[in-house]
Amino acid sequence: MSSSSAPESVRFCSGCGGEMQTRLVGDKPRRVCPDCGFIHFTDPKVGVGVLIVADGRILLVRRTMHPEIGKWSIPAGYLDAGEDPEATAVRELFEETGLRGEIERLVGVYYNPPQQGGASIFILYQGRLVGGHLQAGDDADAAAFFSLDHLPELAFASTRAAIQMIT
Amino acid sequence: MSSSSAPESVRFCSGCGGEMQTRLVGDKPRRVCPDCGFIHFTDPKVGVGVLIVADGRILLVRRTMHPEIGKWSIPAGYLDAGEDPEATAVRELFEETGLRGEIERLVGVYYNPPQQGGASIFILYQGRLVGGHLQAGDDADAAAFFSLDHLPELAFASTRAAIQMIT
Repeated sequence: MSSSSAPESVRFCSGCGGEMQTRLVGDKPRRVCPDCGFIHFTDPKVGVGVLIVADGRILLVRRTMHPEIGKWSIPAGYLDAGEDPEATAVRELFEETGLRGEIERLVGVYYNPPQQGGASIFILYQGRLVGGHLQAGDDADAAAFFSLDHLPELAFASTRAAIQMIT
Repeated sequence: MSSSSAPESVRFCSGCGGEMQTRLVGDKPRRVCPDCGFIHFTDPKVGVGVLIVADGRILLVRRTMHPEIGKWSIPAGYLDAGEDPEATAVRELFEETGLRGEIERLVGVYYNPPQQGGASIFILYQGRLVGGHLQAGDDADAAAFFSLDHLPELAFASTRAAIQMIT
Protein backbone atom coordinates (compact mmCIF):
# COMPACT_ATOMS: atom_id res chain seq x y z
CA MET A 1 0.00 0.00 0.00
CA SER A 2 2.93 2.36 0.50
CA SER A 3 3.25 3.24 -3.19
CA SER A 4 -0.43 4.17 -3.58
CA SER A 5 -0.51 6.37 -0.48
CA ALA A 6 2.13 8.58 -2.16
CA PRO A 7 1.36 8.51 -5.90
CA GLU A 8 4.22 9.88 -8.03
CA SER A 9 1.61 11.29 -10.43
CA VAL A 10 0.91 13.99 -7.83
CA ARG A 11 3.84 16.18 -8.87
CA PHE A 12 2.61 19.67 -7.97
CA CYS A 13 0.79 21.17 -4.99
CA SER A 14 -2.84 21.93 -5.88
CA GLY A 15 -2.81 24.88 -3.48
CA CYS A 16 0.43 26.76 -4.24
CA GLY A 17 1.92 24.95 -7.27
CA GLY A 18 5.08 23.89 -5.38
CA GLU A 19 6.87 20.64 -6.26
CA MET A 20 5.60 17.80 -4.07
CA GLN A 21 7.92 15.43 -2.20
CA THR A 22 7.32 12.07 -0.56
CA ARG A 23 7.60 12.13 3.23
CA LEU A 24 6.43 9.90 6.06
CA VAL A 25 3.22 11.29 7.63
CA GLY A 26 2.17 9.21 10.61
CA ASP A 27 2.94 5.66 9.50
CA LYS A 28 2.56 6.14 5.74
CA PRO A 29 4.48 7.89 2.96
CA ARG A 30 2.49 10.80 1.53
CA ARG A 31 3.01 13.43 -1.14
CA VAL A 32 3.69 16.66 0.78
CA CYS A 33 4.36 20.25 -0.33
CA PRO A 34 7.59 21.56 1.24
CA ASP A 35 6.54 25.16 0.47
CA CYS A 36 3.08 25.38 2.09
CA GLY A 37 2.82 22.09 4.04
CA PHE A 38 -0.16 20.73 2.09
CA ILE A 39 -0.55 16.95 2.44
CA HIS A 40 -2.16 14.96 -0.36
CA PHE A 41 -4.39 12.22 1.09
CA THR A 42 -5.56 9.53 -1.33
CA ASP A 43 -9.26 9.23 -0.60
CA PRO A 44 -10.98 6.19 -2.09
CA LYS A 45 -13.31 6.38 -5.06
CA VAL A 46 -16.76 5.37 -3.75
CA GLY A 47 -19.67 4.07 -5.80
CA VAL A 48 -23.27 3.86 -4.61
CA GLY A 49 -26.04 1.84 -6.23
CA VAL A 50 -29.61 0.64 -5.80
CA LEU A 51 -30.80 -2.92 -6.26
CA ILE A 52 -34.39 -2.91 -7.50
CA VAL A 53 -36.26 -6.22 -7.73
CA ALA A 54 -39.86 -6.16 -8.98
CA ASP A 55 -41.99 -9.23 -9.78
CA GLY A 56 -38.88 -11.38 -9.38
CA ARG A 57 -36.93 -9.41 -11.98
CA ILE A 58 -33.91 -7.20 -11.40
CA LEU A 59 -33.36 -3.73 -12.88
CA LEU A 60 -30.06 -3.41 -14.77
CA VAL A 61 -28.46 -0.76 -16.99
CA ARG A 62 -25.96 -1.13 -19.84
CA ARG A 63 -22.79 0.89 -19.35
CA THR A 64 -21.55 3.44 -21.87
CA MET A 65 -18.43 4.22 -19.83
CA HIS A 66 -15.15 2.50 -19.01
CA PRO A 67 -14.49 0.27 -17.18
CA GLU A 68 -16.72 -2.66 -18.23
CA ILE A 69 -18.29 -0.73 -21.13
CA GLY A 70 -21.18 -2.56 -22.81
CA LYS A 71 -21.82 -4.84 -19.84
CA TRP A 72 -24.79 -4.59 -17.47
CA SER A 73 -24.71 -3.34 -13.90
CA ILE A 74 -26.93 -2.19 -11.09
CA PRO A 75 -27.87 1.54 -11.46
CA ALA A 76 -25.02 3.31 -9.70
CA GLY A 77 -22.66 6.25 -9.72
CA TYR A 78 -19.71 7.85 -7.99
CA LEU A 79 -20.16 9.66 -4.70
CA ASP A 80 -18.60 13.12 -4.42
CA ALA A 81 -17.22 14.51 -1.17
CA GLY A 82 -20.08 15.91 0.94
CA GLU A 83 -22.85 13.96 -0.79
CA ASP A 84 -25.36 11.80 1.08
CA PRO A 85 -24.93 8.22 -0.21
CA GLU A 86 -28.66 7.32 -0.08
CA ALA A 87 -29.72 10.52 -1.86
CA THR A 88 -26.99 10.02 -4.46
CA ALA A 89 -28.06 6.41 -5.08
CA VAL A 90 -31.69 7.36 -5.79
CA ARG A 91 -30.56 10.27 -7.98
CA GLU A 92 -28.36 7.92 -10.05
CA LEU A 93 -31.28 5.49 -10.32
CA PHE A 94 -33.44 8.26 -11.78
CA GLU A 95 -30.74 9.58 -14.13
CA GLU A 96 -29.93 6.15 -15.55
CA THR A 97 -33.41 4.58 -15.66
CA GLY A 98 -36.03 7.36 -15.44
CA LEU A 99 -37.50 5.58 -12.41
CA ARG A 100 -38.06 7.14 -8.98
CA GLY A 101 -37.11 5.01 -6.01
CA GLU A 102 -36.64 5.13 -2.29
CA ILE A 103 -34.10 3.31 -0.14
CA GLU A 104 -35.36 0.39 1.95
CA ARG A 105 -32.13 -0.98 3.47
CA LEU A 106 -28.38 -1.29 3.20
CA VAL A 107 -27.38 -4.50 1.41
CA GLY A 108 -23.61 -4.40 1.79
CA VAL A 109 -20.27 -2.69 1.26
CA TYR A 110 -18.08 -4.27 -1.42
CA TYR A 111 -14.37 -3.84 -2.02
CA ASN A 112 -12.96 -3.85 -5.55
CA PRO A 113 -9.15 -4.18 -5.67
CA PRO A 114 -7.58 -1.11 -7.34
CA GLN A 115 -6.37 -2.90 -10.49
CA GLN A 116 -10.00 -3.49 -11.56
CA GLY A 117 -10.69 0.23 -12.13
CA GLY A 118 -13.94 1.94 -11.17
CA ALA A 119 -14.94 2.50 -7.55
CA SER A 120 -12.76 0.81 -4.93
CA ILE A 121 -15.65 0.88 -2.43
CA PHE A 122 -19.19 0.10 -3.56
CA ILE A 123 -22.11 0.77 -1.21
CA LEU A 124 -25.23 -1.12 -2.27
CA TYR A 125 -28.77 -0.38 -1.11
CA GLN A 126 -32.01 -2.17 -1.84
CA GLY A 127 -34.85 0.09 -2.89
CA ARG A 128 -38.40 0.08 -4.14
CA LEU A 129 -39.95 2.00 -7.01
CA VAL A 130 -42.32 4.88 -6.34
CA GLY A 131 -42.78 6.36 -9.82
CA GLY A 132 -41.26 7.38 -13.13
CA HIS A 133 -41.10 5.80 -16.60
CA LEU A 134 -38.38 3.39 -17.71
CA GLN A 135 -35.98 5.22 -20.02
CA ALA A 136 -32.20 4.89 -20.12
CA GLY A 137 -30.11 8.04 -19.65
CA ASP A 138 -26.84 9.55 -18.41
CA ASP A 139 -24.11 6.85 -18.39
CA ALA A 140 -26.51 4.11 -19.54
CA ASP A 141 -27.76 3.42 -23.11
CA ALA A 142 -30.23 0.73 -22.07
CA ALA A 143 -32.22 -0.07 -18.92
CA ALA A 144 -34.37 -3.16 -18.45
CA PHE A 145 -35.71 -5.72 -16.00
CA PHE A 146 -34.21 -9.21 -16.27
CA SER A 147 -35.40 -12.47 -14.77
CA LEU A 148 -32.69 -14.06 -12.68
CA ASP A 149 -32.42 -17.10 -14.95
CA HIS A 150 -31.89 -14.98 -18.09
CA LEU A 151 -29.28 -12.42 -17.05
CA PRO A 152 -27.10 -10.51 -19.55
CA GLU A 153 -23.31 -10.19 -19.24
CA LEU A 154 -22.67 -8.52 -15.89
CA ALA A 155 -20.09 -5.84 -15.07
CA PHE A 156 -18.12 -5.83 -11.81
CA ALA A 157 -17.63 -8.46 -9.14
CA SER A 158 -19.95 -6.48 -6.87
CA THR A 159 -22.89 -6.81 -9.31
CA ARG A 160 -22.42 -10.57 -9.41
CA ALA A 161 -22.05 -10.78 -5.62
CA ALA A 162 -25.23 -8.75 -5.04
CA ILE A 163 -27.25 -10.88 -7.46
CA GLN A 164 -25.95 -14.09 -5.91
CA MET A 165 -27.13 -12.80 -2.55
CA ILE A 166 -30.77 -12.48 -3.69
CA THR A 167 -30.97 -15.78 -5.56
CA MET B 1 -23.26 20.67 -4.13
CA SER B 2 -21.95 22.61 -7.13
CA SER B 3 -19.42 24.58 -5.10
CA SER B 4 -17.87 21.54 -3.42
CA SER B 5 -17.54 19.56 -6.66
CA ALA B 6 -15.24 22.35 -7.94
CA PRO B 7 -13.31 23.62 -4.90
CA GLU B 8 -11.53 26.93 -5.54
CA SER B 9 -8.71 25.73 -3.26
CA VAL B 10 -7.61 23.44 -6.10
CA ARG B 11 -5.69 26.15 -7.94
CA PHE B 12 -2.97 24.15 -9.73
CA CYS B 13 -2.91 20.89 -11.67
CA SER B 14 -1.24 18.16 -9.61
CA GLY B 15 0.06 16.55 -12.79
CA CYS B 16 1.52 19.44 -14.84
CA GLY B 17 1.28 22.48 -12.56
CA GLY B 18 -1.07 24.36 -14.91
CA GLU B 19 -3.69 26.78 -13.55
CA MET B 20 -7.00 24.98 -13.01
CA GLN B 21 -10.32 26.34 -14.28
CA THR B 22 -13.92 25.48 -13.42
CA ARG B 23 -15.81 23.76 -16.25
CA LEU B 24 -18.92 21.66 -16.53
CA VAL B 25 -18.02 17.93 -16.72
CA GLY B 26 -21.13 15.82 -17.23
CA ASP B 27 -23.71 17.53 -15.04
CA LYS B 28 -21.33 19.05 -12.47
CA PRO B 29 -18.78 21.86 -12.36
CA ARG B 30 -15.26 20.48 -11.84
CA ARG B 31 -11.77 21.90 -11.55
CA VAL B 32 -10.10 21.05 -14.86
CA CYS B 33 -6.59 21.69 -16.25
CA PRO B 34 -6.77 23.47 -19.63
CA ASP B 35 -3.16 22.45 -20.39
CA CYS B 36 -3.24 18.65 -19.91
CA GLY B 37 -6.97 17.91 -19.48
CA PHE B 38 -6.68 16.54 -15.92
CA ILE B 39 -10.02 16.57 -14.07
CA HIS B 40 -10.03 16.90 -10.27
CA PHE B 41 -12.73 14.65 -8.78
CA THR B 42 -13.62 15.27 -5.14
CA ASP B 43 -13.64 11.80 -3.62
CA PRO B 44 -15.22 11.51 -0.17
CA LYS B 45 -13.18 10.99 2.99
CA VAL B 46 -14.14 7.55 4.31
CA GLY B 47 -13.76 6.29 7.87
CA VAL B 48 -13.95 2.65 8.94
CA GLY B 49 -14.42 1.40 12.49
CA VAL B 50 -15.08 -1.70 14.58
CA LEU B 51 -17.69 -1.98 17.29
CA ILE B 52 -16.48 -4.42 19.97
CA VAL B 53 -18.89 -5.43 22.74
CA ALA B 54 -17.62 -7.88 25.38
CA ASP B 55 -19.51 -8.85 28.56
CA GLY B 56 -22.03 -6.10 27.83
CA ARG B 57 -19.34 -3.43 27.68
CA ILE B 58 -18.23 -1.43 24.66
CA LEU B 59 -14.63 -0.71 23.64
CA LEU B 60 -13.93 3.00 23.16
CA VAL B 61 -10.82 5.12 22.56
CA ARG B 62 -10.10 8.74 23.51
CA ARG B 63 -9.15 10.91 20.54
CA THR B 64 -5.90 12.89 20.38
CA MET B 65 -6.78 14.39 16.99
CA HIS B 66 -9.17 17.00 15.65
CA PRO B 67 -12.08 16.96 15.18
CA GLU B 68 -13.69 15.99 18.52
CA ILE B 69 -10.33 15.86 20.36
CA GLY B 70 -10.59 14.51 23.92
CA LYS B 71 -13.92 12.78 23.30
CA TRP B 72 -14.40 9.03 23.01
CA SER B 73 -15.15 7.10 19.85
CA ILE B 74 -15.24 3.64 18.39
CA PRO B 75 -11.75 2.52 17.23
CA ALA B 76 -11.59 3.80 13.65
CA GLY B 77 -9.46 5.42 10.99
CA TYR B 78 -9.44 6.83 7.49
CA LEU B 79 -9.49 4.53 4.50
CA ASP B 80 -6.94 5.23 1.76
CA ALA B 81 -7.61 4.56 -1.91
CA GLY B 82 -7.03 0.88 -2.67
CA GLU B 83 -7.36 -0.34 0.92
CA ASP B 84 -9.74 -3.11 1.95
CA PRO B 85 -12.21 -1.61 4.46
CA GLU B 86 -12.44 -4.71 6.69
CA ALA B 87 -8.65 -5.17 6.85
CA THR B 88 -8.20 -1.46 7.56
CA ALA B 89 -10.79 -1.56 10.36
CA VAL B 90 -9.05 -4.42 12.20
CA ARG B 91 -5.64 -2.75 11.68
CA GLU B 92 -6.95 0.49 13.23
CA LEU B 93 -8.42 -1.52 16.12
CA PHE B 94 -4.99 -3.01 16.82
CA GLU B 95 -3.10 0.29 16.44
CA GLU B 96 -5.44 2.18 18.77
CA THR B 97 -6.17 -0.50 21.40
CA GLY B 98 -3.51 -3.25 21.14
CA LEU B 99 -6.32 -5.77 20.63
CA ARG B 100 -6.62 -8.22 17.72
CA GLY B 101 -10.07 -8.61 16.26
CA GLU B 102 -11.91 -10.07 13.33
CA ILE B 103 -14.96 -8.76 11.50
CA GLU B 104 -18.29 -10.47 12.14
CA ARG B 105 -20.74 -8.31 10.19
CA LEU B 106 -21.44 -4.93 8.64
CA VAL B 107 -23.44 -2.73 11.03
CA GLY B 108 -24.13 0.29 8.84
CA VAL B 109 -22.96 3.15 6.65
CA TYR B 110 -23.31 6.59 8.24
CA TYR B 111 -23.22 9.98 6.57
CA ASN B 112 -21.71 12.99 8.34
CA PRO B 113 -22.54 16.32 6.67
CA PRO B 114 -19.32 18.07 5.49
CA GLN B 115 -19.47 20.96 7.97
CA GLN B 116 -18.87 18.51 10.86
CA GLY B 117 -15.32 17.69 9.70
CA GLY B 118 -13.82 14.20 9.83
CA ALA B 119 -14.99 11.43 7.52
CA SER B 120 -18.07 12.18 5.44
CA ILE B 121 -18.81 8.44 5.11
CA PHE B 122 -18.33 6.11 8.07
CA ILE B 123 -18.48 2.34 7.55
CA LEU B 124 -19.05 0.49 10.81
CA TYR B 125 -18.45 -3.22 11.40
CA GLN B 126 -19.09 -5.35 14.45
CA GLY B 127 -16.18 -7.55 15.45
CA ARG B 128 -14.99 -9.94 18.10
CA LEU B 129 -11.67 -10.08 19.90
CA VAL B 130 -9.20 -12.85 19.15
CA GLY B 131 -6.11 -11.69 21.09
CA GLY B 132 -3.82 -8.86 22.11
CA HIS B 133 -3.44 -6.76 25.27
CA LEU B 134 -5.36 -3.54 25.93
CA GLN B 135 -3.03 -0.58 25.41
CA ALA B 136 -3.86 2.75 23.76
CA GLY B 137 -1.76 3.83 20.78
CA ASP B 138 -1.60 5.79 17.51
CA ASP B 139 -4.34 8.48 17.50
CA ALA B 140 -5.73 7.40 20.92
CA ASP B 141 -4.31 8.24 24.37
CA ALA B 142 -6.72 5.97 26.27
CA ALA B 143 -8.66 2.80 25.45
CA ALA B 144 -11.17 1.17 27.77
CA PHE B 145 -14.38 -0.85 28.03
CA PHE B 146 -17.45 1.05 29.23
CA SER B 147 -20.77 -0.27 30.44
CA LEU B 148 -23.60 1.20 28.42
CA ASP B 149 -25.11 3.01 31.42
CA HIS B 150 -21.81 4.77 32.27
CA LEU B 151 -20.57 6.09 28.95
CA PRO B 152 -18.02 8.93 28.64
CA GLU B 153 -18.52 11.96 26.37
CA LEU B 154 -18.89 10.57 22.84
CA ALA B 155 -17.42 11.98 19.63
CA PHE B 156 -19.38 12.03 16.35
CA ALA B 157 -23.06 11.46 15.60
CA SER B 158 -22.12 8.07 14.14
CA THR B 159 -20.72 6.83 17.48
CA ARG B 160 -23.93 7.80 19.25
CA ALA B 161 -26.08 6.23 16.50
CA ALA B 162 -24.14 2.97 16.65
CA ILE B 163 -24.41 2.75 20.44
CA GLN B 164 -28.13 3.53 20.33
CA MET B 165 -28.53 0.66 17.90
CA ILE B 166 -27.12 -1.91 20.36
CA THR B 167 -28.95 -0.67 23.46
